[in-house]
Amino acid sequence: MVYAESNPNNGTNGMEGSQIVEKKKLVVLGSGWAGTSFLKNIDSSLYNVQVVSPRNYFAFTPLLPSVTCGTVEPRSIIEPIRNIVKKKKGEIRFSEAECIKIDAANNKVHCRSNHDINVEGKEEFLLDYDYLFIALGAQANTFNTPGVMEHCHFLKEIEDARRIRRSVIDCFERASLPNLSEDEKRVILHFVVVGGGPTGVEFAAELHDFICEDLVKLYPSLHKLVKITVIQSGDHILNMFDSRISSFAEQKFQRDGVEVKTGYRVVNVSDKYITMKSKANQETSSLPYGMIVWSTGIGTRPVVMDFMKQIGQTDRRVLATNEWLRVEGCDNVYALGDCATINQRKIMEDISDIFKVADKDNSGTLTVQEIQNIIDDIRVRYPQVEVYLKRKHLRNVMDLLQGSLESAQGKTKELHIEEFKAAFEHVDSQMKSLPATAQVAAQQGVYLARCFNCMHDCEVEPEGPLRMKGSGRHRFRPFEYKHFGQFAPLGGEQTAAELPGDWISIGHSTQWLWYSVYASKQVSWRTRVLVMFDWTKRFTFGRDSSRL
Amino acid sequence: MVYAESNPNNGTNGMEGSQIVEKKKLVVLGSGWAGTSFLKNIDSSLYNVQVVSPRNYFAFTPLLPSVTCGTVEPRSIIEPIRNIVKKKKGEIRFSEAECIKIDAANNKVHCRSNHDINVEGKEEFLLDYDYLFIALGAQANTFNTPGVMEHCHFLKEIEDARRIRRSVIDCFERASLPNLSEDEKRVILHFVVVGGGPTGVEFAAELHDFICEDLVKLYPSLHKLVKITVIQSGDHILNMFDSRISSFAEQKFQRDGVEVKTGYRVVNVSDKYITMKSKANQETSSLPYGMIVWSTGIGTRPVVMDFMKQIGQTDRRVLATNEWLRVEGCDNVYALGDCATINQRKIMEDISDIFKVADKDNSGTLTVQEIQNIIDDIRVRYPQVEVYLKRKHLRNVMDLLQGSLESAQGKTKELHIEEFKAAFEHVDSQMKSLPATAQVAAQQGVYLARCFNCMHDCEVEPEGPLRMKGSGRHRFRPFEYKHFGQFAPLGGEQTAAELPGDWISIGHSTQWLWYSVYASKQVSWRTRVLVMFDWTKRFTFGRDSSRL
Repeated sequence: MVYAESNPNNGTNGMEGSQIVEKKKLVVLGSGWAGTSFLKNIDSSLYNVQVVSPRNYFAFTPLLPSVTCGTVEPRSIIEPIRNIVKKKKGEIRFSEAECIKIDAANNKVHCRSNHDINVEGKEEFLLDYDYLFIALGAQANTFNTPGVMEHCHFLKEIEDARRIRRSVIDCFERASLPNLSEDEKRVILHFVVVGGGPTGVEFAAELHDFICEDLVKLYPSLHKLVKITVIQSGDHILNMFDSRISSFAEQKFQRDGVEVKTGYRVVNVSDKYITMKSKANQETSSLPYGMIVWSTGIGTRPVVMDFMKQIGQTDRRVLATNEWLRVEGCDNVYALGDCATINQRKIMEDISDIFKVADKDNSGTLTVQEIQNIIDDIRVRYPQVEVYLKRKHLRNVMDLLQGSLESAQGKTKELHIEEFKAAFEHVDSQMKSLPATAQVAAQQGVYLARCFNCMHDCEVEPEGPLRMKGSGRHRFRPFEYKHFGQFAPLGGEQTAAELPGDWISIGHSTQWLWYSVYASKQVSWRTRVLVMFDWTKRFTFGRDSSRL
Repeated sequence: MVYAESNPNNGTNGMEGSQIVEKKKLVVLGSGWAGTSFLKNIDSSLYNVQVVSPRNYFAFTPLLPSVTCGTVEPRSIIEPIRNIVKKKKGEIRFSEAECIKIDAANNKVHCRSNHDINVEGKEEFLLDYDYLFIALGAQANTFNTPGVMEHCHFLKEIEDARRIRRSVIDCFERASLPNLSEDEKRVILHFVVVGGGPTGVEFAAELHDFICEDLVKLYPSLHKLVKITVIQSGDHILNMFDSRISSFAEQKFQRDGVEVKTGYRVVNVSDKYITMKSKANQETSSLPYGMIVWSTGIGTRPVVMDFMKQIGQTDRRVLATNEWLRVEGCDNVYALGDCATINQRKIMEDISDIFKVADKDNSGTLTVQEIQNIIDDIRVRYPQVEVYLKRKHLRNVMDLLQGSLESAQGKTKELHIEEFKAAFEHVDSQMKSLPATAQVAAQQGVYLARCFNCMHDCEVEPEGPLRMKGSGRHRFRPFEYKHFGQFAPLGGEQTAAELPGDWISIGHSTQWLWYSVYASKQVSWRTRVLVMFDWTKRFTFGRDSSRL
């Protein structure tokens, strides 16, 4: 009877059955940052929660680059989903399966077990939902470059990191075989990283450390033949960071002998060569390589792509949601994490409605009082206002309106719609989509879980801003992202960090900050202890170079 | 120039080149217990040592069953060969490759890299040797049972243990999928172990502990559906141990609900069923299963088989060597570990020669003095004598000869050949081949390394026993195995142990003995710390159930 709930027609047993059926069915797709943080926070006594993920564990992905070289062991950064949810009040059911189709019209998801199940026809199953949470993440983006899928390593999953680790040792073992010329060895020991983002740079730095700190002792004759190349299409690596960080990283790489080729786009990868085109002179050149790690941003998973087609979101890279993370065009489907992006509402599109709502006495003008009454709702509903104020060093919306108010006629200082519009004219320029990071995904999971936990209360007493179209208030405040900063480990026990308030910190002390933040952010005490043990282990014994 | 030595025609550089060429070339095949213990002990300043193994690490195989359930992590029991040999004086070269053919006639081995090497035609190479050490181990023995290769797990390599771990979790995840009937779940959760030897029994015990201590908490509804079956062709499990141990194990398994089916031989394995035949009534029966681990002893690797054909050792399971571990029929090829067995010389075959050697004055009879002069050589040359004496509770060979001496004619007490023969008549019954264990392999590695280290001295001053055929002494004493006992972990923190002197110990305290012995036997401080940390980790946090 465990799975009876997923099929209500089946609920023939009296009281208990009907009680269970009353609970709304939440189906969560994915067990990454977004899905797991939702699961940790949802009150599972209120809902029937069912999770579907091809992996029965959560992985602490920011440490993936550390796993590629054995600084941290793969099992130290993963925690079984069942472990995470077992302490919760209600039951959260988990199915290790892949979602192969979302059927939003019928409130169903089609799933397929990823094991070779030996009971016929049972590898596929259907789940009904009342609310669906799509937290499927993203996959590597090859930009359809030929040969990438076949010949490159990616760095999205824990298995990828493991494969890279094995492959690095493979290169050293291959280069140690007899009968190879020095040039052949150089080719085998040429490691190429495509993509100069935080992941690619961190991997290059880890690899450099691994080679210089550990492998040099075991393969002394090969050390001078190793080469690491980072290929970046932009003008700088780490270009999403402050320029001080990217130039520090470039200088450090130069000192370390890691070649950074900026302004090159990879156009083809064969089994022996990687071919790229210079943006400057459009010339193509080919390099022989031993191993390539491809880390150039994220692409859409096929099942999400298919769902987007169904709901008319074509020509998009990720699912569009509103500020409450609800998928546009669906009533009961939410999307969070890397597979989704928030379509922020432009304030200028709603400006007449806002004016109407604010103008309570329908006088056609807004008094200072009327403006003050709606200011909070505007700030909550249109987060770009807040960003704009900060940017312009203004204290509050009244400061923003000051100019318009001053130019307003008479002593009454009332605003007409044109003056009101003029004040907000440039605010929308501050809209930007959130980065595809663990931080965003985790905060979205917490946010959505909280919304669903207080759904009942909020229906009675809505806590959101005033509806600018329609009447009353929104049930919830829209999702608001708090940025706690970002790290870029650069190897050699040095890390760069961009912290809130444009605070930049680079160096050894930042590495220790990195250690403490990453230790504290672990999902369980188990992984926290394991990760710290791994760090100690690598300081004491170095990294393991067994080809496993 | 690193590999110039393997190709002497290449040695064009003056002094240094010729010095290197003078050193004898030792090629070691394999990096298991035998190969690694040889490498650790060989004086690499005296020889040119080259190792070939498909794995660049040594694995502490007695802990493999612990790895199958995550009690110990795979990387905690392996150590890179390069790490093990890097502190040695001379250079030991390592090639991660598989030996595909031994060409004893030309003193060459053909090797093939097991990587997908991207330099054409370089994946195969040839090595010359002056002395070859075959330590290739064995592979699982399927007894040509149909379906075993395709559907069963083995437990020989670290990758096997990893696959089993993943597969156990797979079964639990598969059984957790919706839409399965209870019977279908029972089938998926039916774990079958074929072979009731120490490995099979330890795996069954580990699995039972893993399920009862850890998985029951995460999959509470499945616990009662799990079944573990051990199929053993003999009448008892652990039948190489004392009967007290095997009956204790059988009783413990009965209490634990692990079914032991003795007297059954598996005749077929399909994707869904395992079919076996009862030895008692020859009836066949089939059981549906979720997963099978096949652990029924060892078989010959193809390359060893091929080599055996070359040297005329056909119809044998393993390579036959003499007591000095030299392969019979080859001058400069040694074999050690699971791929070899020592063909012990029967004393009765040599008895006339022994008599002749002992009878220094050619009197046709042996005096007590003459006998005493040769006793030590006999004991060393024919180790079965020692075993026989112990068995019969005799102090020494003189006691054995007492009867013959007493019946000898006259006061002189001299022995004729018939009386001499009669005394040793039953001694050869005590010959038995050594078990295929880590202990034997490790001791053989140490023995051979020591022989080669003092080869020069022993050629001048031989330390071996008198040659019974020919003149002078053997250079070395023959290999002598010292048995330090054997453990059989039974789960639930209980272990059985058979220690020297027929001392049997079973229970919790033996488990602690097991912990301390296995910790102390680790190949490096690194693995020692890691293994002890893993044990602590599992006591604190339980075993990880992520499907990785």
